[in-house]
Amino acid sequence: MSAAEKVDLLVTGGTVLTMNAGRELIRDGAVAIVGDTIRAVGTRSELAAKFQPTRTLDARGALILPGLINGHAHAAMSLFRGLADDLALEDWLQKHIFPAEAANVNEEFVACGTRLSMLEMLRAGITTYADMYYFEDVVACVTRETGMRGILGETIVDFPAPDNKTPADALRYTEKYLRDWENDPLVIPAVAPHAIYTCCEKTLLDSAVLARQHGAPILIHISEAPFEIEASKQKHGVSPIGYLAKIGFLGPDVVGAHCIWVDADDIALLKKFSVGCIHNPSSNMKLASGIMPVVDFLDAGHPVGLATDGAASNNSQDIFEEMDTAAKLQKIARMDPRALPAIQVVEMATIGGARALHLDRIVGSLEPGKKADLIFVDTNGPHATPMYDVYSQLVYALRGSDVKTVIIGGKLLMENHRMLTIDEEKTLCEARAYQKKLSGWAKLA
Amino acid sequence: MSAAEKVDLLVTGGTVLTMNAGRELIRDGAVAIVGDTIRAVGTRSELAAKFQPTRTLDARGALILPGLINGHAHAAMSLFRGLADDLALEDWLQKHIFPAEAANVNEEFVACGTRLSMLEMLRAGITTYADMYYFEDVVACVTRETGMRGILGETIVDFPAPDNKTPADALRYTEKYLRDWENDPLVIPAVAPHAIYTCCEKTLLDSAVLARQHGAPILIHISEAPFEIEASKQKHGVSPIGYLAKIGFLGPDVVGAHCIWVDADDIALLKKFSVGCIHNPSSNMKLASGIMPVVDFLDAGHPVGLATDGAASNNSQDIFEEMDTAAKLQKIARMDPRALPAIQVVEMATIGGARALHLDRIVGSLEPGKKADLIFVDTNGPHATPMYDVYSQLVYALRGSDVKTVIIGGKLLMENHRMLTIDEEKTLCEARAYQKKLSGWAKLA
Repeated sequence: MSAAEKVDLLVTGGTVLTMNAGRELIRDGAVAIVGDTIRAVGTRSELAAKFQPTRTLDARGALILPGLINGHAHAAMSLFRGLADDLALEDWLQKHIFPAEAANVNEEFVACGTRLSMLEMLRAGITTYADMYYFEDVVACVTRETGMRGILGETIVDFPAPDNKTPADALRYTEKYLRDWENDPLVIPAVAPHAIYTCCEKTLLDSAVLARQHGAPILIHISEAPFEIEASKQKHGVSPIGYLAKIGFLGPDVVGAHCIWVDADDIALLKKFSVGCIHNPSSNMKLASGIMPVVDFLDAGHPVGLATDGAASNNSQDIFEEMDTAAKLQKIARMDPRALPAIQVVEMATIGGARALHLDRIVGSLEPGKKADLIFVDTNGPHATPMYDVYSQLVYALRGSDVKTVIIGGKLLMENHRMLTIDEEKTLCEARAYQKKLSGWAKLA
Repeated sequence: MSAAEKVDLLVTGGTVLTMNAGRELIRDGAVAIVGDTIRAVGTRSELAAKFQPTRTLDARGALILPGLINGHAHAAMSLFRGLADDLALEDWLQKHIFPAEAANVNEEFVACGTRLSMLEMLRAGITTYADMYYFEDVVACVTRETGMRGILGETIVDFPAPDNKTPADALRYTEKYLRDWENDPLVIPAVAPHAIYTCCEKTLLDSAVLARQHGAPILIHISEAPFEIEASKQKHGVSPIGYLAKIGFLGPDVVGAHCIWVDADDIALLKKFSVGCIHNPSSNMKLASGIMPVVDFLDAGHPVGLATDGAASNNSQDIFEEMDTAAKLQKIARMDPRALPAIQVVEMATIGGARALHLDRIVGSLEPGKKADLIFVDTNGPHATPMYDVYSQLVYALRGSDVKTVIIGGKLLMENHRMLTIDEEKTLCEARAYQKKLSGWAKLA
């Protein structure tokens, strides 16, 4: 018998949801990992015979699945969680969020808020997230230090932002940021012109040109609210998506969050340009933004990712909650309980989200050669018993708090609910200090 | 100084959400309990000076609130959780749920499923629930043995049920059941004619008469699905609520689950007859039943309770999830982010739910003289940090898994996440045996 091949880590014994093309489920499965990469996926007995691991992790009684993908977040805004809920959009933004940002957002704030969000997202099994905020270099530092994977976009707007006072300043900041983080194993630096109603045509195109010079992704809010559609039709004579297509902004490097108010022509354009589309069901409901026609996107063969949006508008950063909400929202919107079945929702949270972020070559499924981003989900709770269908269970019964172990790029970040790369007490303590400082901006101070 | 008054239990140190008429919040609060009843609610220092407790429970860092009320459940159906999701209503009922019930539901099944649900509900902070199922005497036994509070209704239908083959048999069973459980400190036996489309007029009225002879509550599904409304208009010339009013069924002892397809006249009738109305947002979305106009009920001054419905149609029995979903569903349905603000949702889960169940004299708020049903909710998680508004946090950020301690009628049922009156391992083990037995009825066997 030949000597077994050495691997760094062997995960064994749970049910593996590969989310590969055949959506293969492997009971009593295993995943072998070398460095930051998956070497093999198979049954426990197969892989035990083939590999000699430096370390073995027992996942019996758990589901082993690709780390969840949060396609749109504003991580630092966790410090604004619940600051001002149940308000009209204008009041919420103009009287609470914008003044609170102007007065408080600096590098320390962003570091603290981002670290708090890493903690929350990791505890709920998120391994990759896309972010849009200010001081994105700080977001990248915290993400890297925590060991999460992120597409992190520096936000560019025409009005003075907490970090840069003009779009020109923001573009200069972003150019340096893109250079500083190129080729990082976890952080993918990106450019994030905020939206068509906060960026003029020049800002949008300057942002896109800069991103394309560096091969960086472009993150943007698209068609989130009715006012945006009305304004675009009035100003440009076309929908926001028609406008972005016309000016040459759209492309396979663009990720659009929301995409709610779209017609068949818009969906066709998004597909034609391979624009990644991200659904934020909880945020869209809570802010009464509207309902993205997710089923129409999927019917058109265009993948959709799932996301939490920022904690000021949701207020949870938990993809399990978004899975549950996404499925139920399509059903009620279409008055059809068959709409968006559980397996499609799990796809949105994994391989579909990876496709929407243009990252499906490296994450989104458990397959040899992909990055070793995986989570163990405990299925022993009373709320998850009995279990007839793993996809139904993940979407409708299991919760973020059932995630027990998180591995990103082959590295353990949480083991049996214990955080390994973040000082949890310190992070919470710092966040509570901001709670005191910010309470003057709260709706009910 | 006079001798302090003796109390059995003093809960101290958390923030008390009294949910009393003034919605008083008491920081560093305390609750004193004698027997199964609240003796006093106040600040920690006030109550520490006044009372000498046999036992003290430290609730620092937690929210102390009235136990949550689940206004409509089918507890034993937890064994069908996820058996057959994402199906058209007819397929779901006729091809999966009804055959699975006919073949499997007996006293052992009901005991096992109910015990599993007690575990799930208690872990999520539910202290009172309303139930409709078969073999309700068994449900009552398990509820009593666990120490939960319940309005438990024996289901009466015109077709042969797992326990009784005719409505006459069911009425005889129910009469004995009502007598056996009268004056129980926790179990309120009830009569549950299923719905107007499964009970003829005679069955509805016989059920109501029996209930009224015994002073028992009447539980029924009302206006859940469009077909029910169409059939009622065709057959009776009026809406289901109009019909129930006309035949003398409605009254202040009736609790109606769903009440989705209602107009202003229906709401006025429900209010006129003081019918308790229960909203099941997750179930209504998942089954695509429709959206209850909750805001219209509240605007009309008629209270609404919250509920999970059965685990075959939701699939979670967690009022935190229902709070979050209820708030967001009204906002998106009305395209108004101000609709159903957080405090109104917490009311629905506590005092409003108690009103809807006609139990507000004994539960729903923390006030002297009411039953000592209270829960501690841990607020230290990253997903619940920072906290600016306790109501926002409860609805939009906190989760069932944050409930750490549950007291019902002065008795501890869960302490620091440890179950005290249910053998958790045994219950889960028995439920898993049913999983094997039932998997032949699963959609994806």
